[in-house]
Amino acid sequence: MYDIDLTSAISEIKRLKARIVALQVPEGLKKRAYQFAEDIEKNSSAEVLVVAEPCFGACDIPSSLFDMVDAVVNIGHSPIPSLKYGKPVIFVAARSKVPIVDQLKKSVGMLHEPVGVLATSQHLTQLDEVIEGLESMGIKTKISEGDSRISHAGEVLGCNFTAATALAKDVNSYLLIGSGSFHALGVHLSTGKKIVVLDPNLEEPREIDQIKDKMLRQRHAVIERAENARIFGIIVGEKIGQRRMRRAKELRKLLRWKRKDAALILMDKFDPEKLRSLPFDAYVSTACPRIAIDDVAMYDKPLLTPQELEIVLGVRDWENYTFDQMTEDEI
Amino acid sequence: MYDIDLTSAISEIKRLKARIVALQVPEGLKKRAYQFAEDIEKNSSAEVLVVAEPCFGACDIPSSLFDMVDAVVNIGHSPIPSLKYGKPVIFVAARSKVPIVDQLKKSVGMLHEPVGVLATSQHLTQLDEVIEGLESMGIKTKISEGDSRISHAGEVLGCNFTAATALAKDVNSYLLIGSGSFHALGVHLSTGKKIVVLDPNLEEPREIDQIKDKMLRQRHAVIERAENARIFGIIVGEKIGQRRMRRAKELRKLLRWKRKDAALILMDKFDPEKLRSLPFDAYVSTACPRIAIDDVAMYDKPLLTPQELEIVLGVRDWENYTFDQMTEDEI
Repeated sequence: MYDIDLTSAISEIKRLKARIVALQVPEGLKKRAYQFAEDIEKNSSAEVLVVAEPCFGACDIPSSLFDMVDAVVNIGHSPIPSLKYGKPVIFVAARSKVPIVDQLKKSVGMLHEPVGVLATSQHLTQLDEVIEGLESMGIKTKISEGDSRISHAGEVLGCNFTAATALAKDVNSYLLIGSGSFHALGVHLSTGKKIVVLDPNLEEPREIDQIKDKMLRQRHAVIERAENARIFGIIVGEKIGQRRMRRAKELRKLLRWKRKDAALILMDKFDPEKLRSLPFDAYVSTACPRIAIDDVAMYDKPLLTPQELEIVLGVRDWENYTFDQMTEDEI
Repeated sequence: MYDIDLTSAISEIKRLKARIVALQVPEGLKKRAYQFAEDIEKNSSAEVLVVAEPCFGACDIPSSLFDMVDAVVNIGHSPIPSLKYGKPVIFVAARSKVPIVDQLKKSVGMLHEPVGVLATSQHLTQLDEVIEGLESMGIKTKISEGDSRISHAGEVLGCNFTAATALAKDVNSYLLIGSGSFHALGVHLSTGKKIVVLDPNLEEPREIDQIKDKMLRQRHAVIERAENARIFGIIVGEKIGQRRMRRAKELRKLLRWKRKDAALILMDKFDPEKLRSLPFDAYVSTACPRIAIDDVAMYDKPLLTPQELEIVLGVRDWENYTFDQMTEDEI
């Protein structure tokens, strides 16, 4: 389902004269990890260390291994340009091979022109095809760069919708190529515009009204449950592209101003079990914004985004509910 | 059940002029994490980041956080003197408060003099009491320093039994103060001597013959299952005190010499799920030696220790079965 071409990564390994490289492979491609490692080792003089930990994005490069390796090869994510790793990180695209042009026809009736065109990382290489396809059907399209956390025009990350918001005044709807509903919800909440999701693996374009209503009901309930919390744990993500210490400290100040107690917590991979053993009444995550939303059912204690904490503390209105984003100057 | 005294840690934080410290708390004490953090923040000018990740020993200091903090406070483990962290790590003992002297009487009939006296980290502070108690009953005792991975006389780690092996010629049995059977099995396999385990929380001294037989049957089965494996994954632990890259590379050479394929794998916290998604027929762990033994039932594919791989490949006899150890010059 995915094309992985290691040729340019191997050239880069040779250029760097890297002797030992860590290899990050997305979960869905892990069964091919040995084949990728062999390919690199046979065609360069580097030794490969296959990283067993799951990787959730270009924010999730294993900085703790930097003193063991000369470079990291990351398959399946596009770089975050504003992030300085301190070691060479070689990004290898995983290009979806599912044809998409025929599927566009079904979306056309759902869209309002001009259409903002968006994709998640795995489908970026299909955006040209999408624009060409829509234009050939007479549909006007727009595409925009994002801020410096975004490497490709039209790309949306779970933590950054700036390639969409930049177009908000110029389009009447969005078409997002990608799976799941999280990115689409984020774009919709940030822009107020209609969005249609086309997942090439599902073949049916979807709107998100129902899932949006369900999500908002869930978030409302979590916010209500957090209102009686006395001691808050503010979570700073350990992953190199999620370390929002400044934001966490601001939230701690806000909580103290509102006469609540708060401690700062460091967490790598989020896990309800880790929070269950800690003594806090509610948690605020400044790490990957998806976790609180996607995994809501897994957490006993309220797990809030920073914006949701603002609602709990009465400094933001529910009407201004929006997803959390990480912007270029934050990390 | 445990006395935690943060006074000297707070003095050290002040001496270091640390502004931000990471705090590692053992799982059993996590409910007191906020109280510990408050204590440090009220009595120093440092801000505390509570580490949500579990900590399995002095080998498990979060090196990935070193650029976010000025020091680490670790509660519940004793230092590994040979390990260079590159940042100040302040160790705070968790001293068991369970009285032990009365329980010694029940052990006496099971021991052969002279008795080597041993403890796991949580019970080190009770060793003086144990020696005094046994001697007052007329039992001769011996105690020894370990190698440079061991900070206290009589201390055994899951990866290092040198404080026991140093006494092997001078004692006829061991008394180990600690919980579980792993350390006792390790000492027994390394020395061939009888060992009695006294867990102060259980109040009944135990011998390990039955559990040893069960463990050896399990290991024999795992070794047999690995004999047909074609591609091996050799796991290097990411934790700062478990990174045996040299050992892993030696094992890879050995496998290749025996015409087997092998790749190197990096893993932080061990998790059967992480291995399940990888394509290897069998795994060898050079990280914490306990995992393969304690968690045997959790792994579908054979997970071997380095010594067990040697048996699989015919370069060690089953009769020389022994637990894996990490020695002072390895990391």
